[in-house]
Amino acid sequence: MKKLNLFLFLFFVSTLVAKQNPKNIILLIGDGMGISAVSASVHSIQNDQFKKFKSIGLVNTCSADKLVTDSAAGATAYATGFRTNNGKLGIDPSGKKLENIVEIVKRKNMSAGVVVTCSVTNATPAAFLSHVESRKSEFEIAEQIYKNNNVDLILGAGTDFFLPKNLGGKRKDGKNIADSMKQKGYQVIIDTTFSIKNFTKKTLGLFSPNAFVYADKRNFTLGDMTKSAIDYLSKNKNGFFLMVEGSQIDWGEEHNDRNYFYSEMKDFNSAIKEALDFAEKDKNTLVIVLADHDTGSFGINSKNDDGLVDWTWASNKHTANLIGLFSFGPGAELFTGIQNNFEVGRKLINLFQKKF
Amino acid sequence: MKKLNLFLFLFFVSTLVAKQNPKNIILLIGDGMGISAVSASVHSIQNDQFKKFKSIGLVNTCSADKLVTDSAAGATAYATGFRTNNGKLGIDPSGKKLENIVEIVKRKNMSAGVVVTCSVTNATPAAFLSHVESRKSEFEIAEQIYKNNNVDLILGAGTDFFLPKNLGGKRKDGKNIADSMKQKGYQVIIDTTFSIKNFTKKTLGLFSPNAFVYADKRNFTLGDMTKSAIDYLSKNKNGFFLMVEGSQIDWGEEHNDRNYFYSEMKDFNSAIKEALDFAEKDKNTLVIVLADHDTGSFGINSKNDDGLVDWTWASNKHTANLIGLFSFGPGAELFTGIQNNFEVGRKLINLFQKKF
Repeated sequence: MKKLNLFLFLFFVSTLVAKQNPKNIILLIGDGMGISAVSASVHSIQNDQFKKFKSIGLVNTCSADKLVTDSAAGATAYATGFRTNNGKLGIDPSGKKLENIVEIVKRKNMSAGVVVTCSVTNATPAAFLSHVESRKSEFEIAEQIYKNNNVDLILGAGTDFFLPKNLGGKRKDGKNIADSMKQKGYQVIIDTTFSIKNFTKKTLGLFSPNAFVYADKRNFTLGDMTKSAIDYLSKNKNGFFLMVEGSQIDWGEEHNDRNYFYSEMKDFNSAIKEALDFAEKDKNTLVIVLADHDTGSFGINSKNDDGLVDWTWASNKHTANLIGLFSFGPGAELFTGIQNNFEVGRKLINLFQKKF
Repeated sequence: MKKLNLFLFLFFVSTLVAKQNPKNIILLIGDGMGISAVSASVHSIQNDQFKKFKSIGLVNTCSADKLVTDSAAGATAYATGFRTNNGKLGIDPSGKKLENIVEIVKRKNMSAGVVVTCSVTNATPAAFLSHVESRKSEFEIAEQIYKNNNVDLILGAGTDFFLPKNLGGKRKDGKNIADSMKQKGYQVIIDTTFSIKNFTKKTLGLFSPNAFVYADKRNFTLGDMTKSAIDYLSKNKNGFFLMVEGSQIDWGEEHNDRNYFYSEMKDFNSAIKEALDFAEKDKNTLVIVLADHDTGSFGINSKNDDGLVDWTWASNKHTANLIGLFSFGPGAELFTGIQNNFEVGRKLINLFQKKF
């Protein structure tokens, strides 16, 4: 009987442990990555990562003012737990500032990182790093990254928005935001390519004036950047939040360019793999993979000579089709079923809010 | 301590009970109902049922010989647990007969029913009722329904294939299959409309020469037929299997006809509602809602004056996009993640195989 007691007790405890809040969250956003895109990956891409997930949800991506969201409102919903109007970042439709998950994480002495393949001032990363009326204000967003943020790691492109004209940037106000970041204590890496780093201090890394070239023209992957980010952020015993974006999947679709799409989708898979590899070992990390919206809603109908599936496009625009949400790790059970995009953000924030 | 023991014991038992096999399975197939179609329902349809499901999976619908399945091979995968070539029903690519879930259920003295809005000899229902080389053999399928089957309830259309020419059918062989079914002990109802019945014996009900008119021109719903079927089949204490098909969703999409699509999609929702209402009360019924394949892969982009969303079509054909699987009840946890269509069929059969 004593053995049974012990067994039942351990069973009970293990059930509780399984439902505990995660220490870390890695949120991977495939921009424009609807079910068509996931289907192409499942059918075609070697080392497709989506098949690894047991927990799946579907997300309604509408914004506060439109059936079809843009990336600014879409990412704001995930970053803050609130819907806003298309074009706005980190503020509600009336202009009120919305605290984002990165700010909450930093308040709690956890680490936070943002890793993207576009300019770090572009809509999706900017929703996690700024509060502006218009996503077009990329010079202002760069300034807010310096002024408002204590994000531990920002990797992507965008020297255009951080450097003045005389130093090769596009800032007309003469400000050198990269230098300001250095004075704030950041390591600033400006280079034409990313190489795996063992980061030891807060870092801003910009590896292209604006968005990176196509993934298959890069000599590094989003997976490489993600691995470096996880290695650094996971040193914080309080836990971390990392947002990784496959930024250009959407652009491949908006150009109805199949090769461009595949190039970015393979690259995004490399990032998911790094996140899952870490989470499987760590056992205390929630990995969420989703999109801000579908783009193009293509219908797969054949296999090409290149061994990859082919399709016809419904459009070259964002759509309001439900997108897939793939989750792994403690807390994954919260993200099944059909939910609104802002509810996903709210749940992510709650998982960390409850932590302390 | 004794109280804690009791609590732990009950907790343990309740966990085991929650994972038991279902007594009944209701499988609802929306023909051609891809994620676009589900999205339109979620955005637009009053009393949308998809939002009720917490458990979601995605299904690769390929057939044995084609990336893009037809409804024959698609339904065979669910009915038998095996993939076959497009066009074939209930047999493998070499022609070998595959036992289907309806036959297994009948071997186990459970009840089985098939309820559709097309001819009961059409591809999807025929995969659960016959074994033929070609889905076009609808006269042969009708004969197999008589000869091979002991299905308790078949409701749909199709007098064309059951009656000889002189009685208003299209059979050239002079056979009256409806009469043969009567002689076998079936109640045969041939009518121009369905009205809710309290069935008390095995029944074949045919309510149109071939497919029903559009759902919004019918004075009954697929939900009415589903409710009658559940009422009858659930009288069997050994349990039941019911397949319900929203047969014409696909045809609305193949015609790129938005009104037709909505008419059928609303109708299909009425059937899901009946299944869920029963399962919620019964607590021992697994409800699975899925599609045999996507059709048209439309991209939703606006809301029309009629209050329903509108879109552009990628095509008027079947696609190989992953489709959604929505499950509720005991066993639902088996149907999460990304899986192949034949695995869904295999799991359904295993749930009943293990039962005895």
